[in-house]
Amino acid sequence: MPLFLPRCLAASAVLLCAVAPTFAQNAPRDVLMPKPASVQFAADGLRVQPGLTVVLSRSQSPRLQAATLRFLKRMEDKTGTELPRSISTGSSGTIVLEVASDGEAVQGPEENESYSLEVTTTGVHLKAATTVGALHGMETIYQLTQPAGNGYVIQAATVQDSPRFPWRGLMIDCSRHFEPLDLLKRNIDAMAAVKLNVFHWHLVDDQGFRIESKVFPKLTQLGSDGKFYTQAEARELVEYARARGIRVVPEIEMPGHSAAWLVAYPELNSGTKPDGIRQEFGISDTALDPTRDETYQFIGRLLAEITTIFPDPYLHIGGDETPAPDWKKNPRILEFKKAHNLKDNEALQAYFNTRVLAILTKLNRKMLGWDEILNPDLPKSIVIQSWRGEASLSAGAQQGYQGVLSAPYYLDAMKTAGVHYLADPVPAETKLTTDQQKLILGGEVCMWAEQLNERTVESRVWPRTAAMAERFWSAQNVRDVDDMYRRLLPTSLELETFGLRHLSSEDAGLRSIAGTERIGALRSFAQAFEPVPFGNRYQEQHTSQLTPLTNFVDAVVPDPPVKHRLELATRALTGSAGTPAASTAATELTEYYQTVGASVPDVQAMIANAPRLQPMAQRAQQLTALSQIGVQAVHYLTAHQPAPPSWKADSLAQLEAAKKPSAIVRFVFQDSLTQLVQAVQ
Amino acid sequence: MPLFLPRCLAASAVLLCAVAPTFAQNAPRDVLMPKPASVQFAADGLRVQPGLTVVLSRSQSPRLQAATLRFLKRMEDKTGTELPRSISTGSSGTIVLEVASDGEAVQGPEENESYSLEVTTTGVHLKAATTVGALHGMETIYQLTQPAGNGYVIQAATVQDSPRFPWRGLMIDCSRHFEPLDLLKRNIDAMAAVKLNVFHWHLVDDQGFRIESKVFPKLTQLGSDGKFYTQAEARELVEYARARGIRVVPEIEMPGHSAAWLVAYPELNSGTKPDGIRQEFGISDTALDPTRDETYQFIGRLLAEITTIFPDPYLHIGGDETPAPDWKKNPRILEFKKAHNLKDNEALQAYFNTRVLAILTKLNRKMLGWDEILNPDLPKSIVIQSWRGEASLSAGAQQGYQGVLSAPYYLDAMKTAGVHYLADPVPAETKLTTDQQKLILGGEVCMWAEQLNERTVESRVWPRTAAMAERFWSAQNVRDVDDMYRRLLPTSLELETFGLRHLSSEDAGLRSIAGTERIGALRSFAQAFEPVPFGNRYQEQHTSQLTPLTNFVDAVVPDPPVKHRLELATRALTGSAGTPAASTAATELTEYYQTVGASVPDVQAMIANAPRLQPMAQRAQQLTALSQIGVQAVHYLTAHQPAPPSWKADSLAQLEAAKKPSAIVRFVFQDSLTQLVQAVQ
Repeated sequence: MPLFLPRCLAASAVLLCAVAPTFAQNAPRDVLMPKPASVQFAADGLRVQPGLTVVLSRSQSPRLQAATLRFLKRMEDKTGTELPRSISTGSSGTIVLEVASDGEAVQGPEENESYSLEVTTTGVHLKAATTVGALHGMETIYQLTQPAGNGYVIQAATVQDSPRFPWRGLMIDCSRHFEPLDLLKRNIDAMAAVKLNVFHWHLVDDQGFRIESKVFPKLTQLGSDGKFYTQAEARELVEYARARGIRVVPEIEMPGHSAAWLVAYPELNSGTKPDGIRQEFGISDTALDPTRDETYQFIGRLLAEITTIFPDPYLHIGGDETPAPDWKKNPRILEFKKAHNLKDNEALQAYFNTRVLAILTKLNRKMLGWDEILNPDLPKSIVIQSWRGEASLSAGAQQGYQGVLSAPYYLDAMKTAGVHYLADPVPAETKLTTDQQKLILGGEVCMWAEQLNERTVESRVWPRTAAMAERFWSAQNVRDVDDMYRRLLPTSLELETFGLRHLSSEDAGLRSIAGTERIGALRSFAQAFEPVPFGNRYQEQHTSQLTPLTNFVDAVVPDPPVKHRLELATRALTGSAGTPAASTAATELTEYYQTVGASVPDVQAMIANAPRLQPMAQRAQQLTALSQIGVQAVHYLTAHQPAPPSWKADSLAQLEAAKKPSAIVRFVFQDSLTQLVQAVQ
Repeated sequence: MPLFLPRCLAASAVLLCAVAPTFAQNAPRDVLMPKPASVQFAADGLRVQPGLTVVLSRSQSPRLQAATLRFLKRMEDKTGTELPRSISTGSSGTIVLEVASDGEAVQGPEENESYSLEVTTTGVHLKAATTVGALHGMETIYQLTQPAGNGYVIQAATVQDSPRFPWRGLMIDCSRHFEPLDLLKRNIDAMAAVKLNVFHWHLVDDQGFRIESKVFPKLTQLGSDGKFYTQAEARELVEYARARGIRVVPEIEMPGHSAAWLVAYPELNSGTKPDGIRQEFGISDTALDPTRDETYQFIGRLLAEITTIFPDPYLHIGGDETPAPDWKKNPRILEFKKAHNLKDNEALQAYFNTRVLAILTKLNRKMLGWDEILNPDLPKSIVIQSWRGEASLSAGAQQGYQGVLSAPYYLDAMKTAGVHYLADPVPAETKLTTDQQKLILGGEVCMWAEQLNERTVESRVWPRTAAMAERFWSAQNVRDVDDMYRRLLPTSLELETFGLRHLSSEDAGLRSIAGTERIGALRSFAQAFEPVPFGNRYQEQHTSQLTPLTNFVDAVVPDPPVKHRLELATRALTGSAGTPAASTAATELTEYYQTVGASVPDVQAMIANAPRLQPMAQRAQQLTALSQIGVQAVHYLTAHQPAPPSWKADSLAQLEAAKKPSAIVRFVFQDSLTQLVQAVQ
């Protein structure tokens, strides 16, 4: 087929013809994410101009002042307009921040995060009970700032806002692969932009103890590969987060996932000593010995130190995945179980947890742990983080335990933002009573790090986490997936202004793989792929901490924007045949499948000189065939022409074959193209 | 003209049809940069495979071991092959590093940086006198590692290498715009990759005193906007650099460029006290008072502290641009000049420098300063850094002073890599005697930071600095600009693996400006532009430290790869008409001009919703016309057809008009298109 490509296609690889839509002069473009509890737009808004003044009319706290100056700098960069570098006290100014108090000395889940915002053509009035509320309000003002004419306006609007859930977190695993402090800082900025408020810092695991202890220096000297956070660095991050209204909850995982502890202090073991820091992934057999007082003395001294670094009211003690075969074999431990009437490992772990809880209570901290800690022996003051399924969250609530949901928010499952978005910590159909529902504090997105490193983590976290941030903040009935995706795109761009690499890492990876900066064809090709989920990759590649992560699978990103656009177009074409929308969709789909298909020969030509591209040879061939199927399917649907007799069966068979593992990637159009083919008569 | 674009063009915006060239199986692809003193390639090379072993056969220094492990990790990432995480002692292994000693306790210009390398199909033998030599050798091995078949080989070669000049530096101005530590670290990595060995840290200027002093804490408390390096951070960078064979030379600028000092300690002033830290750029009127002993006591205590952080044998005291009008007005100073027989400001500054030199000598440091410090009153132990022109370098050498050249290496001049490359600290036509030539220690690339910040600095530094790195390392007669550019591209990709943003910042900037991630057309459009030089921008925009740097000019990069490709193609077409090379060039040029021209309507459609793009409206119109001229010129040249009577004059007039300032950018093809048009009959 001759490849005559319309000009707009030539200029970009994917679904190009839709340039950024133009908006009527006065129609507000609602890109707020998360959606506020209540917002009414009016026409126009406040022009962002150099004469703009900012006043703090009540609280003058240093934290509020610093945050306001940072906000102004971001507004400057967004609008290209020089804005004031100083803020005054008073009640008259273009932007007035009326904040009642600085809020809690140490931020906890009880913090008042509400704010209200009034924007007119002459000014902005932001009112909040606390600094954290004001920070949220400033993020909303930033998102309300949109192009208009030859400049920017803060859109006129009335906003009343407060979060649905008080616990809205992101956990980053810094043990399986270490993440540098500057990366964590910019991810904190990104969290603040979408009103997340808990950074759950997974600091300890089999692969490394990442927080410096001066009491037990060998924990990092022997229990890490040299990469860890000094206490000064950890304090720096706590301060950085506090300045942005984000709590830092440290996780010091015990008694399992503790190979790193045991490399450093083998005397703590239950029978099996690890050879060294684990570089393999998966569940390890080692565990701390829960039967000896020395273990609790160690933990007590360590946690006393940890609490001098992390002031948060909560401390996460891990507690998941502890098969601890030693606890069933070691005679001393068996003796202990018998003496204490602990019938099995679960009971012994609950005993361990009660001992640790006593330590935490003395340190004025509340215990948080994975759902394995749920046990009637533990008091109702503990918080359960449910990862094995929604069921444990409900079970906990029904027994009176507070909980935080993570199970549907595992980023390495490579689900779409839309699927993550629809999972609710308290779904409409919940069986929990109202009081029980109050025990669900919120949710946490989890970024486990077995299959990523500092170069690739951000594209796995963002922008999908923003969708979940909305789930945790906004009302239960805010569930329009298409509208979420519409707002996810500008949010994703906002996050890039913090220096996040989620949008630039793919091209950098492709350049490295191709050995050239001319990656136009490869970029188009990559638009057809995304990584497979964690479990599939684990089976196909069995990564360890030593596995280089510089292949094609590491470059491509989960749920790229084109994936949802394909879904929309497929839906429009198959659902509303004959309409203008269907016609546009047909054009978009044809262009997409033609472009990705057209990229294949150039990519195949590259392969000879790009060994890291060679595993993609089979996928490339499949792409040629599948893209042709795409073009044909659209043709049959729009020409109202029946396909040849075997076309459908044959196409579906090829699509089915494409599901087989190959190069640890899958086609972004696996489902939507199947739908398209199915729709053909 | 209908726009039928060949498929390969569709896949990328610019000069696409040349995909990465394929190489004959055994022909080595020489991408070494800088070019070694001597290299002979052989066929094949050592396959990079998991079984590869690495041994250190002589020196086992911790620094060498750590560097070797880092090198192996980079080799892993490049080849996607798991390599050992440990290195042994011994003399037999796949890769043998035979390093005589760790070298100087504190690296200085006398360090032996030579190495030799023997790579065969069975092994690698790297021999060096010092760790620094070995580091250079490892960088060469990394560059010798190339795709071959379904994997990578380290190309078989015999290399004897050592640098032409001992002083090969990069200066980054961290005062006009602060640069975070992690950014500096990755730029240190990049420097090491191209064998630069001096990081000149411009820490002090009117806009901010960026290094913490515990003796004089107000220097940063009042003399900076809160952004500075703590002593711990500075030591961290010194260590990071040392581990990579790079010296860190701190610049504590005096007596001019000292507004920040004087905000903090006004008692040091010469009569005029600054109102605050300067946010304007340009030369300030304030200066330290060179007549009072208190000034020297202050400097003495400060530099004593500085030398505890920076162990380098040299300390840079600045010394440039000190008009110091107070020294001509303040009666006390006039009195002093009279009493000490100092006839003018230059003599007074020389007096100042001799006093500071005495301080440095006591601290066991050598003085380095900008060329204004050249004065017969100062001993021959000082080193002059020439920035005002090559003449001062030669003048200094003729008077017996050592010197380092910077004048032709100012990155903000927005010169091409090729122009920078051809400037030589000791050109072939030099009038200096052999002994005088030995006084030229080398050169330093200078990145002044008035018009950039952390988001944009790296695209201004790289990859052009790599070309100058070769100038400083390689032989005087290595001057083939086309070959340099050929090797500059893969070098640029290598630098990206350190996390440099020089290749990704443009797209990130364009996304932010456009408000969409679909920037295909804008990316093509941007291929026509680069920023104007410092002086032009200063006149057009008059930036201050407060100016937002998020406009189109900040996104586009100086001397993008396409610029030289256009030059090559224009040369081929106009110089060798009728040949296949000319024919290929004609196709490439036509495609380029068609693509950039075709992008304009899409960009114009974006402009309505992208206020930061609106300043480009005039350039967009010019681009439509100039791109048509380009296509027409190629047509007339290849069709051997004379142009219509007024075409040439009219085209040249439009090109001339395009030189007028507009949006602080210029066309990358300003010169090459003019040449093309001139060639038309």
